[in-house]
Amino acid sequence: MKSLLLVAHGSRRAASNDEVRELATHLEKHTNGAYGQVACAFLDLAEPSIPDGLRQAIHAGAREVIVLPYFLSAGRHVVTDIPGEVDLVRAEYPDVSITLAAYLGASPGLVELLAGLAEQD
Amino acid sequence: MKSLLLVAHGSRRAASNDEVRELATHLEKHTNGAYGQVACAFLDLAEPSIPDGLRQAIHAGAREVIVLPYFLSAGRHVVTDIPGEVDLVRAEYPDVSITLAAYLGASPGLVELLAGLAEQD
Repeated sequence: MKSLLLVAHGSRRAASNDEVRELATHLEKHTNGAYGQVACAFLDLAEPSIPDGLRQAIHAGAREVIVLPYFLSAGRHVVTDIPGEVDLVRAEYPDVSITLAAYLGASPGLVELLAGLAEQD
Repeated sequence: MKSLLLVAHGSRRAASNDEVRELATHLEKHTNGAYGQVACAFLDLAEPSIPDGLRQAIHAGAREVIVLPYFLSAGRHVVTDIPGEVDLVRAEYPDVSITLAAYLGASPGLVELLAGLAEQD
């Protein structure tokens, strides 16, 4: 089973964390069965943590997990913190493949999306 | 003249601010003359500020400016801070139309973009 874990920063504002949870639900619908599970996890300030999110996916049967950073810039969180959390769980489950996808801000499609948002006015 | 101002949070990390500047350049190329000017501005920690970015656009000849928040969640920055900065400049230039576009995280196309990023692995 292949699972997808959307990873966000996490916020003190519960509604922001709920936006991420809702996005994971939409992503699950959109990918239409391509992943056995689509969930989210947070680097800080909200639950589950990234290691707990990965462990939950693995306990649910994932043998492959794609970690997708919902971040706009390649700062410390994307470059150091998220890979560090992922490595913790790689060491616990060496037979599970955990792959880090590119972070959102690196997506070439972002420009088109932004242009579309601007045109809606 | 209609201009587009991409508004980001701003970071202590210069490379993150440069990512936003580069994105504004790509956005200008992508929109291919639809806007007289595409620039960026920052809520905090980087220059220009949002009011200065708006003033620069207006001094360059803009009579209409679209402000596009490069933010993932509808937190205080999107709901209160950015509209507040925009209102400052609206009061200075009542004959210029300044419109706030939806923030990036509200884009319905985000789900498809994220699904595409996950599939690249």
